[in-house]
Amino acid sequence: MRILGIDPGLRTLGWGVIESRGSRLSHVANGHLHPQGTDLAARLLSLYEQLRDVVARHAPDTAAIEQTFVNKDGAGTLKLGQARGVALLALAEAGLSVGEYAPNKVKKTVVGVGHADKVQVQHMVRLQLPGCEPAGADAADALAIAICHAYYGGVKERPLREVRTS
Amino acid sequence: MRILGIDPGLRTLGWGVIESRGSRLSHVANGHLHPQGTDLAARLLSLYEQLRDVVARHAPDTAAIEQTFVNKDGAGTLKLGQARGVALLALAEAGLSVGEYAPNKVKKTVVGVGHADKVQVQHMVRLQLPGCEPAGADAADALAIAICHAYYGGVKERPLREVRTS
Repeated sequence: MRILGIDPGLRTLGWGVIESRGSRLSHVANGHLHPQGTDLAARLLSLYEQLRDVVARHAPDTAAIEQTFVNKDGAGTLKLGQARGVALLALAEAGLSVGEYAPNKVKKTVVGVGHADKVQVQHMVRLQLPGCEPAGADAADALAIAICHAYYGGVKERPLREVRTS
Repeated sequence: MRILGIDPGLRTLGWGVIESRGSRLSHVANGHLHPQGTDLAARLLSLYEQLRDVVARHAPDTAAIEQTFVNKDGAGTLKLGQARGVALLALAEAGLSVGEYAPNKVKKTVVGVGHADKVQVQHMVRLQLPGCEPAGADAADALAIAICHAYYGGVKERPLREVRTS
Protein backbone atom coordinates (compact mmCIF):
# COMPACT_ATOMS: atom_id res chain seq x y z
CA MET A 1 0.00 0.00 0.00
CA ARG A 2 1.48 3.32 -1.10
CA ILE A 3 0.68 6.46 0.84
CA LEU A 4 1.22 10.04 -0.37
CA GLY A 5 1.55 12.65 2.37
CA ILE A 6 1.12 16.35 1.60
CA ASP A 7 2.16 19.43 3.55
CA PRO A 8 0.28 22.11 1.60
CA GLY A 9 1.51 25.63 0.84
CA LEU A 10 1.50 28.12 -2.01
CA ARG A 11 5.23 28.92 -1.85
CA THR A 12 6.36 25.40 -1.06
CA LEU A 13 4.37 22.19 -0.99
CA GLY A 14 6.10 19.26 0.68
CA TRP A 15 5.29 15.74 -0.42
CA GLY A 16 6.40 12.28 0.60
CA VAL A 17 5.53 8.76 -0.54
CA ILE A 18 5.93 5.72 1.73
CA GLU A 19 5.05 2.08 1.41
CA SER A 20 3.39 -0.04 4.07
CA ARG A 21 3.89 -3.82 3.75
CA GLY A 22 2.70 -5.95 6.61
CA SER A 23 4.23 -4.35 9.68
CA ARG A 24 6.99 -2.54 7.77
CA LEU A 25 7.12 1.04 6.53
CA SER A 26 9.57 2.05 3.83
CA HIS A 27 10.48 5.23 2.03
CA VAL A 28 9.71 5.65 -1.67
CA ALA A 29 10.35 9.30 -2.51
CA ASN A 30 9.92 12.84 -1.22
CA GLY A 31 10.38 16.39 -2.40
CA HIS A 32 9.17 19.97 -2.62
CA LEU A 33 7.02 21.66 -5.23
CA HIS A 34 7.62 25.32 -5.95
CA PRO A 35 4.79 26.82 -8.00
CA GLN A 36 5.90 29.05 -10.86
CA GLY A 37 4.12 32.12 -12.24
CA THR A 38 3.54 35.75 -11.49
CA ASP A 39 -0.17 35.80 -10.76
CA LEU A 40 -2.14 33.68 -8.34
CA ALA A 41 -4.13 31.69 -10.92
CA ALA A 42 -0.93 30.74 -12.78
CA ARG A 43 0.77 29.67 -9.54
CA LEU A 44 -2.20 27.52 -8.57
CA LEU A 45 -2.18 25.90 -12.01
CA SER A 46 1.57 25.25 -11.71
CA LEU A 47 1.10 23.68 -8.26
CA TYR A 48 -1.73 21.51 -9.56
CA GLU A 49 0.23 20.27 -12.58
CA GLN A 50 3.32 19.49 -10.51
CA LEU A 51 1.28 17.59 -7.94
CA ARG A 52 -0.50 15.65 -10.67
CA ASP A 53 2.94 14.65 -11.98
CA VAL A 54 3.95 13.38 -8.52
CA VAL A 55 0.74 11.32 -8.31
CA ALA A 56 1.25 9.91 -11.82
CA ARG A 57 4.91 9.09 -11.14
CA HIS A 58 4.46 7.37 -7.78
CA ALA A 59 0.91 5.95 -8.13
CA PRO A 60 -0.15 6.09 -4.46
CA ASP A 61 -3.17 4.07 -3.25
CA THR A 62 -4.25 6.65 -0.70
CA ALA A 63 -3.27 10.12 0.48
CA ALA A 64 -3.15 12.27 3.59
CA ILE A 65 -2.89 16.00 4.17
CA GLU A 66 -2.25 18.17 7.17
CA GLN A 67 -5.30 19.78 8.73
CA THR A 68 -4.77 23.47 8.43
CA PHE A 69 -4.18 25.48 11.54
CA VAL A 70 -6.40 28.54 11.25
CA ASN A 71 -4.86 31.58 12.89
CA LYS A 72 -5.54 35.28 13.01
CA ASP A 73 -3.66 35.98 9.79
CA GLY A 74 -6.66 35.98 7.46
CA ALA A 75 -4.65 36.72 4.32
CA GLY A 76 -2.28 33.83 5.09
CA THR A 77 -5.21 31.50 5.76
CA LEU A 78 -6.79 32.47 2.44
CA LYS A 79 -3.55 31.80 0.52
CA LEU A 80 -3.05 28.47 2.22
CA GLY A 81 -6.70 27.60 1.60
CA GLN A 82 -6.31 28.21 -2.11
CA ALA A 83 -3.23 25.97 -2.32
CA ARG A 84 -4.91 23.34 -0.17
CA GLY A 85 -8.03 23.36 -2.35
CA VAL A 86 -6.00 22.74 -5.48
CA ALA A 87 -4.00 19.95 -3.78
CA LEU A 88 -7.20 18.23 -2.58
CA LEU A 89 -8.61 18.52 -6.08
CA ALA A 90 -5.58 16.82 -7.65
CA LEU A 91 -5.89 13.97 -5.12
CA ALA A 92 -9.67 13.58 -5.62
CA GLU A 93 -9.26 13.61 -9.40
CA ALA A 94 -6.83 10.70 -9.09
CA GLY A 95 -9.50 8.80 -7.16
CA LEU A 96 -7.51 8.85 -3.91
CA SER A 97 -9.14 8.84 -0.50
CA VAL A 98 -7.66 11.66 1.59
CA GLY A 99 -7.06 11.46 5.33
CA GLU A 100 -6.72 14.69 7.28
CA TYR A 101 -4.63 14.93 10.43
CA ALA A 102 -4.04 17.76 12.85
CA PRO A 103 -0.37 18.81 13.16
CA ASN A 104 -0.32 17.78 16.83
CA LYS A 105 -1.61 14.31 16.04
CA VAL A 106 1.06 13.88 13.35
CA LYS A 107 3.82 14.92 15.74
CA LYS A 108 2.47 12.78 18.56
CA THR A 109 2.38 9.76 16.24
CA VAL A 110 5.83 10.22 14.75
CA VAL A 111 7.79 11.82 17.60
CA GLY A 112 5.73 10.83 20.63
CA VAL A 113 4.86 14.36 21.72
CA GLY A 114 2.48 16.91 20.15
CA HIS A 115 4.79 19.89 20.53
CA ALA A 116 7.84 18.47 18.75
CA ASP A 117 9.97 20.83 16.67
CA LYS A 118 10.98 20.37 13.03
CA VAL A 119 14.38 18.88 13.88
CA GLN A 120 12.77 16.15 15.99
CA VAL A 121 10.26 15.37 13.23
CA GLN A 122 13.05 15.03 10.66
CA HIS A 123 15.06 12.83 13.00
CA MET A 124 12.16 10.44 13.72
CA VAL A 125 11.12 10.32 10.06
CA ARG A 126 14.66 9.17 9.20
CA LEU A 127 14.56 6.54 11.97
CA GLN A 128 11.19 5.14 10.91
CA LEU A 129 11.98 5.18 7.18
CA PRO A 130 15.49 3.71 6.89
CA GLY A 131 17.54 5.27 4.12
CA CYS A 132 15.22 8.24 3.79
CA GLU A 133 16.75 11.70 3.46
CA PRO A 134 13.99 14.35 3.55
CA ALA A 135 14.51 17.15 1.01
CA GLY A 136 13.71 19.65 3.75
CA ALA A 137 11.36 20.46 6.61
CA ASP A 138 8.19 20.50 4.48
CA ALA A 139 9.04 17.17 2.85
CA ALA A 140 9.78 15.68 6.30
CA ASP A 141 6.39 16.94 7.52
CA ALA A 142 4.74 15.35 4.49
CA LEU A 143 6.45 12.01 5.23
CA ALA A 144 5.32 12.31 8.86
CA ILE A 145 1.72 12.84 7.65
CA ALA A 146 2.02 9.73 5.48
CA ILE A 147 3.32 7.74 8.49
CA CYS A 148 0.39 9.02 10.57
CA HIS A 149 -2.00 7.86 7.84
CA ALA A 150 -0.33 4.44 7.86
CA TYR A 151 -1.30 4.11 11.53
CA TYR A 152 -4.68 5.78 11.63
CA GLY A 153 -6.00 5.58 8.09
CA GLY A 154 -7.00 1.92 8.23
CA VAL A 155 -3.95 1.13 6.12
CA LYS A 156 -2.25 -1.09 8.69
CA GLU A 157 -3.82 -3.50 11.13
CA ARG A 158 -1.35 -3.17 13.92
CA PRO A 159 -1.42 -1.17 17.15
CA LEU A 160 0.50 2.07 17.38
CA ARG A 161 4.03 1.54 18.60
CA GLU A 162 5.12 3.66 21.49
CA VAL A 163 7.62 6.10 20.07
CA ARG A 164 9.88 8.17 22.28
CA THR A 165 11.89 11.18 21.32
CA SER A 166 15.59 10.63 21.34
CA MET B 1 -15.80 39.81 -26.05
CA ARG B 2 -17.30 37.37 -23.56
CA ILE B 3 -16.70 37.84 -19.86
CA LEU B 4 -17.27 35.24 -17.15
CA GLY B 5 -17.82 36.62 -13.63
CA ILE B 6 -17.44 34.39 -10.58
CA ASP B 7 -18.66 34.84 -7.01
CA PRO B 8 -16.78 32.01 -5.31
CA GLY B 9 -18.09 29.82 -2.49
CA LEU B 10 -18.02 26.17 -1.42
CA ARG B 11 -21.78 25.86 -0.80
CA THR B 12 -22.85 28.03 -3.72
CA LEU B 13 -20.75 29.48 -6.50
CA GLY B 14 -22.47 32.19 -8.54
CA TRP B 15 -21.49 32.67 -12.18
CA GLY B 16 -22.56 35.01 -14.94
CA VAL B 17 -21.53 35.48 -18.57
CA ILE B 18 -21.97 38.78 -20.40
CA GLU B 19 -20.96 40.06 -23.82
CA SER B 20 -19.38 43.40 -24.55
CA ARG B 21 -19.76 44.68 -28.13
CA GLY B 22 -18.65 48.22 -28.83
CA SER B 23 -20.35 50.26 -26.14
CA ARG B 24 -23.06 47.71 -25.43
CA LEU B 25 -23.25 45.07 -22.72
CA SER B 26 -25.59 42.13 -23.03
CA HIS B 27 -26.50 39.13 -20.93
CA VAL B 28 -25.56 35.62 -22.06
CA ALA B 29 -26.27 33.31 -19.12
CA ASN B 30 -26.00 33.02 -15.36
CA GLY B 31 -26.52 30.45 -12.62
CA HIS B 32 -25.39 28.81 -9.43
CA LEU B 33 -23.18 25.79 -8.87
CA HIS B 34 -23.85 23.58 -5.87
CA PRO B 35 -20.96 21.17 -5.25
CA GLN B 36 -22.02 17.61 -4.44
CA GLY B 37 -20.26 15.14 -2.18
CA THR B 38 -19.83 14.31 1.47
CA ASP B 39 -16.15 15.07 1.99
CA LEU B 40 -14.23 18.21 1.17
CA ALA B 41 -12.07 16.77 -1.63
CA ALA B 42 -15.15 15.37 -3.41
CA ARG B 43 -16.97 18.70 -3.11
CA LEU B 44 -13.98 20.58 -4.53
CA LEU B 45 -13.80 18.13 -7.43
CA SER B 46 -17.54 18.57 -8.08
CA LEU B 47 -17.18 22.37 -8.03
CA TYR B 48 -14.23 22.18 -10.40
CA GLU B 49 -16.00 19.90 -12.88
CA GLN B 50 -19.16 22.00 -12.88
CA LEU B 51 -17.20 25.20 -13.43
CA ARG B 52 -15.23 23.59 -16.25
CA ASP B 53 -18.57 22.71 -17.87
CA VAL B 54 -19.70 26.34 -17.62
CA VAL B 55 -16.45 27.49 -19.26
CA ALA B 56 -16.77 24.86 -22.02
CA ARG B 57 -20.42 25.73 -22.67
CA HIS B 58 -20.06 29.51 -22.79
CA ALA B 59 -16.50 29.90 -24.06
CA PRO B 60 -15.59 33.19 -22.35
CA ASP B 61 -12.59 35.25 -23.55
CA THR B 62 -11.70 36.52 -20.10
CA ALA B 63 -12.83 36.10 -16.50
CA ALA B 64 -13.17 38.04 -13.26
CA ILE B 65 -13.55 37.00 -9.63
CA GLU B 66 -14.41 38.79 -6.44
CA GLN B 67 -11.49 39.65 -4.19
CA THR B 68 -12.12 37.80 -0.99
CA PHE B 69 -12.93 39.75 2.10
CA VAL B 70 -10.79 38.29 4.85
CA ASN B 71 -12.51 38.43 8.21
CA LYS B 72 -11.95 37.02 11.67
CA ASP B 73 -13.69 33.74 10.88
CA GLY B 74 -10.57 31.74 10.04
CA ALA B 75 -12.45 28.51 9.32
CA GLY B 76 -14.76 30.35 6.89
CA THR B 77 -11.79 32.02 5.21
CA LEU B 78 -10.08 28.64 4.77
CA LYS B 79 -13.21 27.08 3.20
CA LEU B 80 -13.68 30.01 0.87
CA GLY B 81 -9.98 29.94 -0.01
CA GLN B 82 -10.21 26.28 -1.01
CA ALA B 83 -13.21 26.93 -3.28
CA ARG B 84 -11.56 30.04 -4.69
CA GLY B 85 -8.33 28.16 -5.42
CA VAL B 86 -10.19 25.51 -7.38
CA ALA B 87 -12.18 28.15 -9.31
CA LEU B 88 -9.00 30.06 -10.21
CA LEU B 89 -7.43 26.80 -11.35
CA ALA B 90 -10.34 26.00 -13.69
CA LEU B 91 -10.05 29.49 -15.21
CA ALA B 92 -6.26 29.32 -15.58
CA GLU B 93 -6.49 25.86 -17.15
CA ALA B 94 -8.84 27.29 -19.79
CA GLY B 95 -6.20 29.92 -20.59
CA LEU B 96 -8.35 32.79 -19.28
CA SER B 97 -6.88 35.94 -17.79
CA VAL B 98 -8.54 36.62 -14.44
CA GLY B 99 -9.34 40.09 -13.10
CA GLU B 100 -9.84 40.49 -9.36
CA TYR B 101 -12.09 43.20 -7.94
CA ALA B 102 -12.89 44.19 -4.37
CA PRO B 103 -16.61 43.91 -3.47
CA ASN B 104 -16.79 47.68 -2.87
CA LYS B 105 -15.38 48.45 -6.31
CA VAL B 106 -17.89 46.10 -7.94
CA LYS B 107 -20.80 47.75 -6.12
CA LYS B 108 -19.53 51.26 -6.86
CA THR B 109 -19.24 50.40 -10.56
CA VAL B 110 -22.62 48.74 -10.91
CA VAL B 111 -24.75 50.60 -8.36
CA GLY B 112 -22.81 53.86 -7.91
CA VAL B 113 -22.12 53.39 -4.20
CA GLY B 114 -19.75 51.00 -2.43
CA HIS B 115 -22.15 50.00 0.33
CA ALA B 116 -25.06 48.88 -1.85
CA ASP B 117 -27.15 45.94 -0.68
CA LYS B 118 -27.97 42.79 -2.65
CA VAL B 119 -31.36 44.07 -3.81
CA GLN B 120 -29.78 47.19 -5.34
CA VAL B 121 -27.11 45.07 -7.07
CA GLN B 122 -29.75 42.77 -8.58
CA HIS B 123 -31.80 45.77 -9.70
CA MET B 124 -28.91 47.52 -11.44
CA VAL B 125 -27.67 44.29 -13.02
CA ARG B 126 -31.15 43.86 -14.58
CA LEU B 127 -31.08 47.48 -15.81
CA GLN B 128 -27.63 47.20 -17.38
CA LEU B 129 -28.24 43.78 -18.91
CA PRO B 130 -31.69 44.01 -20.53
CA GLY B 131 -33.66 40.78 -20.36
CA CYS B 132 -31.42 39.32 -17.69
CA GLU B 133 -33.03 37.54 -14.76
CA PRO B 134 -30.34 36.58 -12.20
CA ALA B 135 -30.80 33.10 -10.74
CA GLY B 136 -30.22 34.55 -7.27
CA ALA B 137 -28.05 36.89 -5.24
CA ASP B 138 -24.78 35.04 -5.95
CA ALA B 139 -25.46 34.94 -9.69
CA ALA B 140 -26.31 38.67 -9.63
CA ASP B 141 -23.03 39.34 -7.83
CA ALA B 142 -21.18 37.31 -10.46
CA LEU B 143 -22.82 39.33 -13.27
CA ALA B 144 -21.87 42.54 -11.43
CA ILE B 145 -18.24 41.33 -11.27
CA ALA B 146 -18.35 40.66 -15.03
CA ILE B 147 -19.74 44.19 -15.64
CA CYS B 148 -16.94 45.62 -13.49
CA HIS B 149 -14.38 43.71 -15.56
CA ALA B 150 -15.97 45.11 -18.74
CA TYR B 151 -15.18 48.60 -17.47
CA TYR B 152 -11.85 48.09 -15.75
CA GLY B 153 -10.36 45.01 -17.36
CA GLY B 154 -9.28 46.72 -20.57
CA VAL B 155 -12.18 45.01 -22.31
CA LYS B 156 -13.96 48.20 -23.33
CA GLU B 157 -12.45 51.49 -24.43
CA ARG B 158 -15.08 53.81 -23.05
CA PRO B 159 -15.23 55.91 -19.91
CA LEU B 160 -17.26 54.66 -16.97
CA ARG B 161 -20.83 55.90 -17.10
CA GLU B 162 -22.13 57.60 -14.01
CA VAL B 163 -24.62 55.19 -12.51
CA ARG B 164 -27.02 56.26 -9.80
CA THR B 165 -29.05 54.07 -7.53
CA SER B 166 -32.75 54.19 -8.20
